[in-house]
Amino acid sequence: MTTVRLIEYQDAEPAVRAVYDDIRATRKTDFINNFWKALANNPVQLAATWQAVKAVMAPGALDALTKELIYIAVSVANSCEYCTHSHTAAARAKGMSDAQHAELLAVIGMAFHTNGLVNAMQVEVDDVFRV
Amino acid sequence: MTTVRLIEYQDAEPAVRAVYDDIRATRKTDFINNFWKALANNPVQLAATWQAVKAVMAPGALDALTKELIYIAVSVANSCEYCTHSHTAAARAKGMSDAQHAELLAVIGMAFHTNGLVNAMQVEVDDVFRV
Amino acid sequence: MTTVRLIEYQDAEPAVRAVYDDIRATRKTDFINNFWKALANNPVQLAATWQAVKAVMAPGALDALTKELIYIAVSVANSCEYCTHSHTAAARAKGMSDAQHAELLAVIGMAFHTNGLVNAMQVEVDDVFRV
Amino acid sequence: MTTVRLIEYQDAEPAVRAVYDDIRATRKTDFINNFWKALANNPVQLAATWQAVKAVMAPGALDALTKELIYIAVSVANSCEYCTHSHTAAARAKGMSDAQHAELLAVIGMAFHTNGLVNAMQVEVDDVFRV
Amino acid sequence: MTTVRLIEYQDAEPAVRAVYDDIRATRKTDFINNFWKALANNPVQLAATWQAVKAVMAPGALDALTKELIYIAVSVANSCEYCTHSHTAAARAKGMSDAQHAELLAVIGMAFHTNGLVNAMQVEVDDVFRV
Amino acid sequence: MTTVRLIEYQDAEPAVRAVYDDIRATRKTDFINNFWKALANNPVQLAATWQAVKAVMAPGALDALTKELIYIAVSVANSCEYCTHSHTAAARAKGMSDAQHAELLAVIGMAFHTNGLVNAMQVEVDDVFRV
Repeated sequence: MTTVRLIEYQDAEPAVRAVYDDIRATRKTDFINNFWKALANNPVQLAATWQAVKAVMAPGALDALTKELIYIAVSVANSCEYCTHSHTAAARAKGMSDAQHAELLAVIGMAFHTNGLVNAMQVEVDDVFRV
Repeated sequence: MTTVRLIEYQDAEPAVRAVYDDIRATRKTDFINNFWKALANNPVQLAATWQAVKAVMAPGALDALTKELIYIAVSVANSCEYCTHSHTAAARAKGMSDAQHAELLAVIGMAFHTNGLVNAMQVEVDDVFRV
Repeated sequence: MTTVRLIEYQDAEPAVRAVYDDIRATRKTDFINNFWKALANNPVQLAATWQAVKAVMAPGALDALTKELIYIAVSVANSCEYCTHSHTAAARAKGMSDAQHAELLAVIGMAFHTNGLVNAMQVEVDDVFRV
Repeated sequence: MTTVRLIEYQDAEPAVRAVYDDIRATRKTDFINNFWKALANNPVQLAATWQAVKAVMAPGALDALTKELIYIAVSVANSCEYCTHSHTAAARAKGMSDAQHAELLAVIGMAFHTNGLVNAMQVEVDDVFRV
Repeated sequence: MTTVRLIEYQDAEPAVRAVYDDIRATRKTDFINNFWKALANNPVQLAATWQAVKAVMAPGALDALTKELIYIAVSVANSCEYCTHSHTAAARAKGMSDAQHAELLAVIGMAFHTNGLVNAMQVEVDDVFRV
Repeated sequence: MTTVRLIEYQDAEPAVRAVYDDIRATRKTDFINNFWKALANNPVQLAATWQAVKAVMAPGALDALTKELIYIAVSVANSCEYCTHSHTAAARAKGMSDAQHAELLAVIGMAFHTNGLVNAMQVEVDDVFRV
């Protein structure tokens, strides 16, 4: 269904294999998900995107799980089915509990709800919010 | 600019005043932002929405700041200008540091980036993500 | 703020004036809103769009007000500020009461809410919904 | 494909069964669609969402079918596949004719069309629309 | 899965067959894709949409391939799975090379990235961009 | 209105000034637009984003203007007001004629139109589009 070919490890050029190897080492799993196999049609973009994702998602001022929750929230609102699946799986792998998932869903539902109301009423930004 | 009238405290009926009073008590501030003043045209919806927001955003399995970050992420992806402003302000009021804000922005940017790539390539969901 | 010039009646070529005249006659008002003045940079597109809007929004199996409510709903979900303003005004001009507006807002809020939940849980379509 | 488990009646706790029973009684059918089975992982959210949907979608200043049409419009623009399927089915169950469906599609198409044009030209809101 | 019936040539009324014939003649292929078969439930809308698409997508100040790339970009950002598939196929049929597709993906990814950052920071439009 | 401070050249640290200098040299203008001034709160992200945009938008298999048109299309569909303004200005600076702009608008409008119809009818992807 993908509009590009999925590149498997055995068919990949060295630059792609190097990224796949780093994904495996970083995640401590042999599994490479389809997103990277699709992106591998452009080895330069594959490497750049992986380096960027790896850097951005590493724990810092926000912990790794919080970052996954934010990633899920964006993916849901952008209607990205694949991203919602893969980052929900990633959040679980990073320790998201069922209770945390339930609250994530509740916040997403509430945010959608008020986003719709605000856009429908075209509420103007309070002066105090304009720094 | 709002498509409905903003209801000020002095012009509000008792049911609306009760909600405004609870917003003030909960947030420990006299300030009522425009969203609630707009919603007050429908006192039943005002009360229901405030109760729901208050319950959902209270700390639980996720802390209050994490919930605000998720709320911002959804609001940004839904292109809700008002919501982005008001929840960024709320996150700051709940202690979001500049470093945390910078990482939030980085995660949002990265999530948008891969959402776009995934939807453009129509990557199919890996079997392993289908529980 | 518009990225194109707004074409006023006195500066317009005959093909544009003809459309403006028909908008005025159809709506029984002298007022031409900015959307048409912006579109008038391309007289062919102006005429085609006006004819299409006029035909689609005329009462048929659905009445004119119901069509405006649907138009508002789409515009809100597509985050089109201008469209939300102009079609809310049009709905009022076609008789939308405050009570109807309040219910429109409630349905939009609820639809956003469950859209978010469904996309977050990636609920699969029931067989019965697949005709 | 759903990111959460679907809770069947026989596996459900009493609070969930009570909601399922009310859905069946309200809709006069034994069928419970997947959305509710997914939401049932959080019985509190299930009950709250069902009560809210039931109240909002009941006929009032707008009739029940008009509310479904608005719900479909939002769901389409939010790219919610499941919601579009389930609310199109609901609209049909509430009497939507083929002619009404055809006009709904035409209005949605037209609204998308002008939403795109307006956002591309960044048309500024006419003063007259700012109440 | 489609919410409407797909109308095949042999079941179509003359007005629909005329459009199908023109699609085949214009595209120099016997294949009619599902979008038109779905739209054929409303012969008037089918004819109007096909005429509009045919006119808009014909080469003019922009060549036919550039127009397909723009169409894909919109479809991706509107999360239209079908449209992304069909217009990617159309772009390939009009000569899009793998290298061009790779750059299209890179631009889409980058645009999504900065769209997210800009909406998250609510950057105000520079005066110089307001003509 | 921006939720972060805009960093002017005279207040910027050396790493930020280096990026500003490169933007000016690349674009052959002294003007730095607000997006970069906002992003400069995070010098690492500023540098990474600028390098990525510069590389992606350089002419390659697609020329620089075509890339801007794609960027505008994404920005419009993602409802990014700032991005639509800034990339429309960039497209004009790279030679976009009024006729090309008019055709861009027509394609965006048409793509929105059919995106809406397809999502409303949930048209299933033709087998031939699934490579």
